[in-house]
Amino acid sequence: METSSNGTVLGNSVAKMEGMRVASPVDARKVEGLSMNGGVDGKSGAENPIPPPTNPLVTALLTDMYQITMAYAYWKAGKQNDLAVFDLLHRKNPFGGEYTVFAGLEECIRFAANFRFTDSDVAYLRTILPSRCEEAFFDYLKGVDCSEVVINAIPEGSVCFPRVPLIRVQGPLLIAQLLETTFLTLVNYASLVATNAARHRRVAGKNKILLEFGLRRAQGPDGGISGSKYCYLGGFNATSNIDAGQRFGIPVRGTHSHAFVSSFMSFDEITKRSLEYNNNSSDVCKDFVLLTMQYLNRMKEVQSLQKWFAETNHSELAAFISYALAFPTAFQALVDTYDVLKSGIPNFCAVALALHELGYKSVGIRLDSGDLSYFSVQTRKFFKVIEKEFGVEGFGNMIITASNDINEDTLDALNKQGHEIDAFGIGTHLITCYQQPALGCVYKLVEINGQPRIKLSEDVAKVTIPCKKQCYRLYGKGGYALVDLMVGDDEPVPKAGERILCRHPFSESKRAYVIPQRVESLYKCYWSGTSGQPREPLPPLEELRRHCQEELAAQRTDHMRGLNPTPYKVSVSGQLYDFIHFLWLSEAPVGELH
Amino acid sequence: METSSNGTVLGNSVAKMEGMRVASPVDARKVEGLSMNGGVDGKSGAENPIPPPTNPLVTALLTDMYQITMAYAYWKAGKQNDLAVFDLLHRKNPFGGEYTVFAGLEECIRFAANFRFTDSDVAYLRTILPSRCEEAFFDYLKGVDCSEVVINAIPEGSVCFPRVPLIRVQGPLLIAQLLETTFLTLVNYASLVATNAARHRRVAGKNKILLEFGLRRAQGPDGGISGSKYCYLGGFNATSNIDAGQRFGIPVRGTHSHAFVSSFMSFDEITKRSLEYNNNSSDVCKDFVLLTMQYLNRMKEVQSLQKWFAETNHSELAAFISYALAFPTAFQALVDTYDVLKSGIPNFCAVALALHELGYKSVGIRLDSGDLSYFSVQTRKFFKVIEKEFGVEGFGNMIITASNDINEDTLDALNKQGHEIDAFGIGTHLITCYQQPALGCVYKLVEINGQPRIKLSEDVAKVTIPCKKQCYRLYGKGGYALVDLMVGDDEPVPKAGERILCRHPFSESKRAYVIPQRVESLYKCYWSGTSGQPREPLPPLEELRRHCQEELAAQRTDHMRGLNPTPYKVSVSGQLYDFIHFLWLSEAPVGELH
Repeated sequence: METSSNGTVLGNSVAKMEGMRVASPVDARKVEGLSMNGGVDGKSGAENPIPPPTNPLVTALLTDMYQITMAYAYWKAGKQNDLAVFDLLHRKNPFGGEYTVFAGLEECIRFAANFRFTDSDVAYLRTILPSRCEEAFFDYLKGVDCSEVVINAIPEGSVCFPRVPLIRVQGPLLIAQLLETTFLTLVNYASLVATNAARHRRVAGKNKILLEFGLRRAQGPDGGISGSKYCYLGGFNATSNIDAGQRFGIPVRGTHSHAFVSSFMSFDEITKRSLEYNNNSSDVCKDFVLLTMQYLNRMKEVQSLQKWFAETNHSELAAFISYALAFPTAFQALVDTYDVLKSGIPNFCAVALALHELGYKSVGIRLDSGDLSYFSVQTRKFFKVIEKEFGVEGFGNMIITASNDINEDTLDALNKQGHEIDAFGIGTHLITCYQQPALGCVYKLVEINGQPRIKLSEDVAKVTIPCKKQCYRLYGKGGYALVDLMVGDDEPVPKAGERILCRHPFSESKRAYVIPQRVESLYKCYWSGTSGQPREPLPPLEELRRHCQEELAAQRTDHMRGLNPTPYKVSVSGQLYDFIHFLWLSEAPVGELH
Repeated sequence: METSSNGTVLGNSVAKMEGMRVASPVDARKVEGLSMNGGVDGKSGAENPIPPPTNPLVTALLTDMYQITMAYAYWKAGKQNDLAVFDLLHRKNPFGGEYTVFAGLEECIRFAANFRFTDSDVAYLRTILPSRCEEAFFDYLKGVDCSEVVINAIPEGSVCFPRVPLIRVQGPLLIAQLLETTFLTLVNYASLVATNAARHRRVAGKNKILLEFGLRRAQGPDGGISGSKYCYLGGFNATSNIDAGQRFGIPVRGTHSHAFVSSFMSFDEITKRSLEYNNNSSDVCKDFVLLTMQYLNRMKEVQSLQKWFAETNHSELAAFISYALAFPTAFQALVDTYDVLKSGIPNFCAVALALHELGYKSVGIRLDSGDLSYFSVQTRKFFKVIEKEFGVEGFGNMIITASNDINEDTLDALNKQGHEIDAFGIGTHLITCYQQPALGCVYKLVEINGQPRIKLSEDVAKVTIPCKKQCYRLYGKGGYALVDLMVGDDEPVPKAGERILCRHPFSESKRAYVIPQRVESLYKCYWSGTSGQPREPLPPLEELRRHCQEELAAQRTDHMRGLNPTPYKVSVSGQLYDFIHFLWLSEAPVGELH
């Protein structure tokens, strides 16, 4: 049998784990069976048109009603082509942390590249707007696309921080406004779950195998599908989700459930009992059931195993034998259907020993309930005893996988208690981001026709930073990022070695001079409409994942730690600071005291 | 302008609110552009084939890898056609409550009716299974469908309780097993968010307008789309999500954002200033901007308004005027872009007074930040002063809508503080089920080839209730449900007026005799494969919603209350109780003390 072809990503341990092969991602267009004719692309330096979003439900109608009422009002006022700049940003990091992984960009670009209203879309919109709305508007809508929109963004998979816009959209007011809801839908969950995956990876440590098992608990089908993708980006090794495996080329993993075990009643159900040896001979073991029973009986005679178990559950053993007969090169068993230590583990070992005699190496076991620390330690001891008593090299090191409501805190507690788990299957807490199930990205107008705009709020955290901006990351001597800096688009680019004043955008007294060793410009252009400007390609998932893991590894650990992490500094230039406060005072009404 | 045609559902207040019309739901098949040829239906009493799931991503590949490895192992063991019964159930109600609204059934049936693997699905599966797997299995997979599967379920929209299976699937082991993950994905979030909506409705009260505003914060696109559907089922009045409006016929609502307001700089931008009177005449107001300014000036002269405001923000006023010129029959404004009381409210009133002079009635305002109780009360006072000073009847009763991080607790607190809010726009907390973002439905094998099966666990709550079962709801004298009762499929149907022993499934001493006034059989058959048995139709969303609201209204209030609700009793018959415990002892291994 072939083992995983994906060793570079998973490391040998995952490949070893289940011996499943990994296929290449299937072309998304082929999978979805959709044509590409919606795109306006083709003149902007790319050879191939950009495919539509992964989920065919992501169309121009997947938006809030107010986008359409606003569109009509803009059009009525003749403002549809005012040149607008919108920022998409988050105001707070999730999970009580001090960083966020940015994800969802590719889907936004695919959406924008293919944005248009079909005739039936427009027909529906006509039914939900007041009947007095002018017909010419609906004709206008049929011609709307993103050919005049330019989208700059931080690269997908980057580590990012509040207030620094993740995406900057510039273009005609009406169309740039129309992108709001869908962009937010595509970025909010993507970034949230990628960050969640990265946080789980940090606590688990880089040598553990992390398996995303979330599909059944996801918030809807593509919560599952996109969740699998972004967990992989955030540092997971594989998923249980076959669709995500096919669609994105993510390694898929899985063995069997409790139902498989309880579907067996007795050995009588196993009618085909022979199994060939794994030694390139034509030797065949005629009765693998008998061989397994012999090993189980031999195990019972081992003095040091007698305190562990007596009679095991035979319907469970029948299930394990059947699974081994189907997958002799990839035998892995779920051991907690009846009783982990009295039944599941001894039954597994009897089958694994029988397989070993025929030249097959087993993978290991999965625990899905109970005290995972205790059971994993006891299981490892049991495996070691078997290794010693039966002289089977490597038996003690078989993979112990654990699942069952695992989250960051559980991982942390297991690390403190001590455990022998090699791989974690994480579902509910990962995929639904249980600790904080929403990220609050917003999409704010910051400039129109060259005029900076501000949105005030009773809550200072909700005041927007006006102007079309450039964003930079300034690095210090240790190679670590010191501060992110936003400047007006017309300000000079900060230079390495030159002293720069960085100010907190709202707190007058918080400011610092920085002499960066290196200055990184955060934005790249990912969509340039039909302007002819070059744009960045959309990298494959493996590359996004590698970029993400490199970014995470490059952060100062005090920003990344779980408890009381240090906030990363986000600042504005002195010029931008002055302008924010000038605009604030000019827009806020002055009260009168009577 | 026409107002809502959906008054029966929304009540007049919603129709009045924005004056948007509601279209019929578009046929899902038409929207998705998919053909129906996947179904195996047609012989089972239905005229029309059942369409595929709403989301085209919901295919046979949207499942966990272990379903396929199990399928292969079942097939290898010759067990693929063993007659299996699986229960889909939840073990715990969400949100600390004592009830759950069951949703997602229609999508499950649509999935099952169209279940099959395409050639390209099978080609992909071949790449992820070990290469030694037999080719005949892949040929077999190509012919798999649900023609021999029978699905019974509690009607969608019903109030349900832990341990009572929501769906019972019987059929060949391999195919019934294959449905697990997808069914769970389709039921878990659907039931969770429907329950969340029902809980919000309970706290808000039946006379408030509840608007679902969740799309941008949903966990992925169809978290948004399906979330809109199930929130409507659970008792919301409308959604902001246009796609859900089109797809499911849900009323859609929306006005404008902060960006709309800040996109305006001055009155100079309003070039077309005329507005016709709403009196079937050809009279036209030539300068609506001037008329509004006149009203604003008159408001400033009113003694009792002078304590409220002085100079308002004129770019905001320009935006409001523009919006009113576009939607004179449906004028509603977001008033917190610069300052609610000093700017937003007086600007809104000036525009509304000008519209009134031309014969138009305005809708109201939306608050999106700050102290919603205080602002709503102050706004209402302001409106009443205007009504009195300017003699505009009904002005004081205009609709006040509030949004901004509203949840059950906020609604409860607002009720206690007092407020003047008529409509709530609820997004993040509703759509992501922030308080508890996952429901833990499971899918368990309970019988195979007529033999009951049990899954044991270290945790009693995780022990399954074996046997193919029938489930009944027993009603008492007050018309309220007393207890749900599970009995073996071969046991007699409980009868009204006859004494029945109801036992807690696991707690020996908890039991009661019940003489029901009425006995309701909970299961109906929704899919009968090609058996020719009749099956229930899949009711339209409006009917599911009505059923849900009736069920919620019929529950005893102590089960429904927010704080320390009384658990509803779920029981088994004496015969089933005995059998559970017999099977438990026969499967659990006996330990030995040394």
